[in-house]
Amino acid sequence: MSAAPAREAERSPQDHLRAVQELLARRRALRDSGGPGAPAPVERGLLQELQRRIEALHPADVAFVLENLPLDERRLAWDLVREDRGDVLLEVSDAVRDTLLADMESDEIVAATQDLEADEIADLAPDLPREVVQDIIEAQDVEERAELQAALSYPEGTVGALMDFDVVSIREDVTCEAALRYLRRFDELPSQTDALFVVDADKRLLGALPLNTLLVTDPEVAIARVYEPEVVSLHPDDEADSAADAFNRYDLVSAPVIDAEGRLVARLPVETVLDYVRSRQEQQALAQAGLREDEDIFASVWASARNRGPWLALNLCTAFVSSRVVGLFEGSIAQLAALAALMPIVAGIGGNAGNQTSTLIVRAIALREVSNARRLLAKELGTSALNGALWGSVLGLAAWALYRNVALGGVMAAAMLLNLLVAAVAGFFIPLAMERLGRDPAVGTSVFLTFVTDSMGFFIFLGLATVFLL
Amino acid sequence: MSAAPAREAERSPQDHLRAVQELLARRRALRDSGGPGAPAPVERGLLQELQRRIEALHPADVAFVLENLPLDERRLAWDLVREDRGDVLLEVSDAVRDTLLADMESDEIVAATQDLEADEIADLAPDLPREVVQDIIEAQDVEERAELQAALSYPEGTVGALMDFDVVSIREDVTCEAALRYLRRFDELPSQTDALFVVDADKRLLGALPLNTLLVTDPEVAIARVYEPEVVSLHPDDEADSAADAFNRYDLVSAPVIDAEGRLVARLPVETVLDYVRSRQEQQALAQAGLREDEDIFASVWASARNRGPWLALNLCTAFVSSRVVGLFEGSIAQLAALAALMPIVAGIGGNAGNQTSTLIVRAIALREVSNARRLLAKELGTSALNGALWGSVLGLAAWALYRNVALGGVMAAAMLLNLLVAAVAGFFIPLAMERLGRDPAVGTSVFLTFVTDSMGFFIFLGLATVFLL
Repeated sequence: MSAAPAREAERSPQDHLRAVQELLARRRALRDSGGPGAPAPVERGLLQELQRRIEALHPADVAFVLENLPLDERRLAWDLVREDRGDVLLEVSDAVRDTLLADMESDEIVAATQDLEADEIADLAPDLPREVVQDIIEAQDVEERAELQAALSYPEGTVGALMDFDVVSIREDVTCEAALRYLRRFDELPSQTDALFVVDADKRLLGALPLNTLLVTDPEVAIARVYEPEVVSLHPDDEADSAADAFNRYDLVSAPVIDAEGRLVARLPVETVLDYVRSRQEQQALAQAGLREDEDIFASVWASARNRGPWLALNLCTAFVSSRVVGLFEGSIAQLAALAALMPIVAGIGGNAGNQTSTLIVRAIALREVSNARRLLAKELGTSALNGALWGSVLGLAAWALYRNVALGGVMAAAMLLNLLVAAVAGFFIPLAMERLGRDPAVGTSVFLTFVTDSMGFFIFLGLATVFLL
Repeated sequence: MSAAPAREAERSPQDHLRAVQELLARRRALRDSGGPGAPAPVERGLLQELQRRIEALHPADVAFVLENLPLDERRLAWDLVREDRGDVLLEVSDAVRDTLLADMESDEIVAATQDLEADEIADLAPDLPREVVQDIIEAQDVEERAELQAALSYPEGTVGALMDFDVVSIREDVTCEAALRYLRRFDELPSQTDALFVVDADKRLLGALPLNTLLVTDPEVAIARVYEPEVVSLHPDDEADSAADAFNRYDLVSAPVIDAEGRLVARLPVETVLDYVRSRQEQQALAQAGLREDEDIFASVWASARNRGPWLALNLCTAFVSSRVVGLFEGSIAQLAALAALMPIVAGIGGNAGNQTSTLIVRAIALREVSNARRLLAKELGTSALNGALWGSVLGLAAWALYRNVALGGVMAAAMLLNLLVAAVAGFFIPLAMERLGRDPAVGTSVFLTFVTDSMGFFIFLGLATVFLL
């Protein structure tokens, strides 16, 4: 006899959200209608129903529901979450996590983190007050405390900050039968365990025995004969990014982490790597648009403006400088106002073309494919020259047709071509310079690039016009 | 006795590339120096050494090396790859794959695909000539052919096109001992098998038995007592994107795929999902900059220009229209050339602010969090008003200070505020409209957004100036 498969899991997070919202709406209606004497038992019933619903959800779904509730109802729902509070805190976005933590007492936070692994607590720690982190450390037993302190000691973005100390290791000098018996002593294996790590008497890593191999091997066979000595192993100081590359490249489910002496200390499971990659990509996408952090939909306008203001201020500064470039040529513009109408085209298309180049260079940097720098630059310049000649001619003809001025058309075409060449050079060197300076080239490139293509576009076009037209 | 762990795997792909490049350079030097009578045995020796090196590499590393070699040397190296050619074809980027396939005979391609799974062949199929796909289908045995045809019948972006037919299933009415015996009959389990799927006599999915559970359970216990009936299952028609969401949300290593009757037909492993997510993100990053496809570093300038031209042309059209908006006010500009210098600031900052809004909306769409549309819009407008008042005042003061013209400063401040409000509305509605029209909101939004913020920025600023200043 068996249950039908997966009713609850197949429902989408949106369905859960709607169900919760509906209960909350009924509660609101009840309160609005009842006045001070609202029938308390009915409201209690609704809240119990709400709690039952929320408790049946996966922590990831609870997180989704909380993210989509306004502050007051979010608080109410969060108070009803009694289990896996730590997991929910891990799942919600940073902005929403802050609103949840703001309402929690220190001891509530400590209690919520009790069931978390050391690497998970390390993940939350930057968002917690220092005293609370201290309380959490003290609430751990001796072994966990050592792990937690180790995890907290590695900087963000390293394997050490992500790794999981829950590993199953085995000696090479036993049989598969013994390994199977050993495993049966566990209540459960650490999540995403796909291999046992094989170690020598000093805990030095020798290799891995995939569970899949263990399962298909005759139990009499010795581990030493079937384990894989060639495994991709990581060090706690390795960059998380290069670890993620290795997971992708070699289709890993987990990888052992070893210390400088080659001793097994922890492992990195793919779920952790996936979470890391995803949150990094999200941060990058936000940072590209100049958002310092994710915004809670229900955050105040004031908080949002603060999140976005610095980027606008930075762009204002560069736009102001470009504007002064135009200011140099106000005399020319007063004589021929057509220049003012045409100049944004030259600047804008330069920005588009430079952005294409920088996107490819950022990608090549990420894939570590810039060993052929000179060749790449030559190709970018060639492509810009070809596109510049083509679209410059088109625009030159358009300018001539509009203003019946052959020289203006010629200046337009020449300025387009030159600015596209500037764009190729800027799109090529800016990301490389950012990388050399230790900045993320995917994030800051656009401001500088637009600055160069705008100000140079204005300068080239208005300069040529001043020389040849006036 | 044991080998040292993982020497080869720990070396980075760059190291492999350098080793290959060095051998190729030695061969070039030999040819250049020797003229027509170059010592053939030495060259043969070099090529054998090269082949040995390449054969020792993981297919993903071979792909990396090939991507970083110029066309002629890439061809030479590819001819030396004799094993896992299909896997290498799967790993290289689309642009490079085309160059490799261009040099292969039909029968070579068919041979290369012999060891691939149905889902992997389906992945390559769009890049192959139709006759070759037909040949590949005919070269399969009966069972594989059916799977391949099934895989080819599902459109890209669905679970059906990604799923793997290699599944291990088991009946619920046996003991764990019997399951273990059954598994030992396999030579190896399908890669990334983390669970056995439990089915009834009609192959209907009942649930999953994680290998981790099987390993810790007493062999006497019946499967029916320990398997998990609640599993996340997929259908072949499901969107690959929502499957990827589920993998991330529930930390899955693999998920069963069932047909409309609930029968187990295939499974989806996390490696496939990861590859899909990565290639989709890359395509999106490229498309955002207007690159239709990835570019081979060694592709011709002509091919690159063709790849980028359409985007530049589209932007040229929108820039041209914005330019005509400025053209309407040429009379005003001729009277007050300062307008030409200040107008790009209004347009540019509008673009930046609109981009911040649209980035958050695109993100909310991806996370399916736009159930609170009205609230979101109100917040965006509020944020824009606040930032607009602040930065508009700063710029208004700057304009007054520069040109000693109070009215000009006032017009500047008002235009900034208004254009930031326009930017909030455009950044809010454009991605939603793209989504409604079935387009990817992350890709096309920027052109339209810039068009709106540029042309409206010019119109508002120059219009206000014409009314109040002249």
